[in-house]
Amino acid sequence: MNTSIKTISILGAGNVGTFFAGSLYNLGYAIHSVYSRNYDDAFLLAKRVGARAARNVKELDNNSDLYIIAIKDDSISELVKNLQVKNGLVVHTSGSIEMDVLDSISNRIGVLYPLQTFSKGMDLKTKGFPICIETKQPEDYTLLKELSERLAGVGQAYPIDSKQRKALHLGAVFVCNFTNYLYSIAEDLMKINELPLELLHPLIIETVNKSTINLPSLNQTGPAKRNDIKVMKQHLELLNSNTGYKEIYKVISEAIINKYNK
Amino acid sequence: MNTSIKTISILGAGNVGTFFAGSLYNLGYAIHSVYSRNYDDAFLLAKRVGARAARNVKELDNNSDLYIIAIKDDSISELVKNLQVKNGLVVHTSGSIEMDVLDSISNRIGVLYPLQTFSKGMDLKTKGFPICIETKQPEDYTLLKELSERLAGVGQAYPIDSKQRKALHLGAVFVCNFTNYLYSIAEDLMKINELPLELLHPLIIETVNKSTINLPSLNQTGPAKRNDIKVMKQHLELLNSNTGYKEIYKVISEAIINKYNK
Repeated sequence: MNTSIKTISILGAGNVGTFFAGSLYNLGYAIHSVYSRNYDDAFLLAKRVGARAARNVKELDNNSDLYIIAIKDDSISELVKNLQVKNGLVVHTSGSIEMDVLDSISNRIGVLYPLQTFSKGMDLKTKGFPICIETKQPEDYTLLKELSERLAGVGQAYPIDSKQRKALHLGAVFVCNFTNYLYSIAEDLMKINELPLELLHPLIIETVNKSTINLPSLNQTGPAKRNDIKVMKQHLELLNSNTGYKEIYKVISEAIINKYNK
Repeated sequence: MNTSIKTISILGAGNVGTFFAGSLYNLGYAIHSVYSRNYDDAFLLAKRVGARAARNVKELDNNSDLYIIAIKDDSISELVKNLQVKNGLVVHTSGSIEMDVLDSISNRIGVLYPLQTFSKGMDLKTKGFPICIETKQPEDYTLLKELSERLAGVGQAYPIDSKQRKALHLGAVFVCNFTNYLYSIAEDLMKINELPLELLHPLIIETVNKSTINLPSLNQTGPAKRNDIKVMKQHLELLNSNTGYKEIYKVISEAIINKYNK
């Protein structure tokens, strides 16, 4: 068993893989090799972090201390078939895949799920987000906790099992992916009406501020909360040209009405 | 015509009325009288801003320079029937009601729509949000612009007509009321799974940061964006006990799939 993680290989060169590779490299970890389905992506990322790009999974260094799998959920089980490691710890970073998808590799497996949204241009020094950890061996939990706290800050490593992780991931979809889609609807409405999206920024920011101070369920405002039928009818008419937006407006408004006006 | 606004009466003691009364009072405006459907609310707010509480609309001071109507949209037209003013400017603060609902009062009417979400405990010094202004008389625009810039900051007063204002209000519903409801779904999911909601805060905040830097339509991530059917199916199963949440998950995911995978 290793006493700490020093060398790392990264599988995946998307937003998450890029973040892990870049920030761990900056923290002084040696990045051995980088694999991506797209070799060019692997090559560019590897170059940035002083690593070797692998053309396929079998070409990865087989003596890294840690392998971080940050690829599309659907592809993990396929990739695992070809992964050969000597004694390293292998983790995936998915919110919704069970740890045991990695069972065939070895006894040293785990999950390192960062509860954050990453983009390629992101500041690699970003801290202050939780990392959810699950491991088969208790000793490996300690290793991942040390690494996670260096990466995200002290107190940011959480022991989260597969069931809880799935609930967190579902929550993340609501507060990140879905809210972002609502923002993009507003983006579209502003464009159609020749208004700058920036007009809505203070409102967007204050809504979030309020939601981190109070419980969101106590913060609800708006026409649906007041069951203001006239305004909702007017809004639906404004959305007449887009069935998709109209459907979203209806379904969320109905849920709010049911919650607050029963 | 007044050369500037010095005295104000407030109609409505909810979140918006409370904000206007409190922050205008702090800025040195004299608040004459406060009316609310609920007299106790009017009494308490009036006390805070050195004003007189009115038991009904007819009891309001009739010689204020400005009357700010911040009541439920549905009630504005009814309230207007009883409002008597000498020479003051009368504005409502609604995002979705036409200015001309005030036509019967006088020639000096307008709209003062703050594009922000207010709560009663809010910091009254909060600035940096747009105030959308519409007036019948061009001179009154100048008066409201001066007041708005003292209230929300220089450059925060925007001439916005009724049609644009409705689009802004609809956008506001999506980015504020609906996102807040999504947060409250996550709040519920965390509670059910005995996880602290705070775990999601860094994600919520980063999602907003990204949306103010890039266009939201370029930031979209998540299972629906990747058309990851397995994960979406798993999520829908997790939501089996709540038809409302399930419906929202489906409708938004379908919209994202349609947008990014066609």
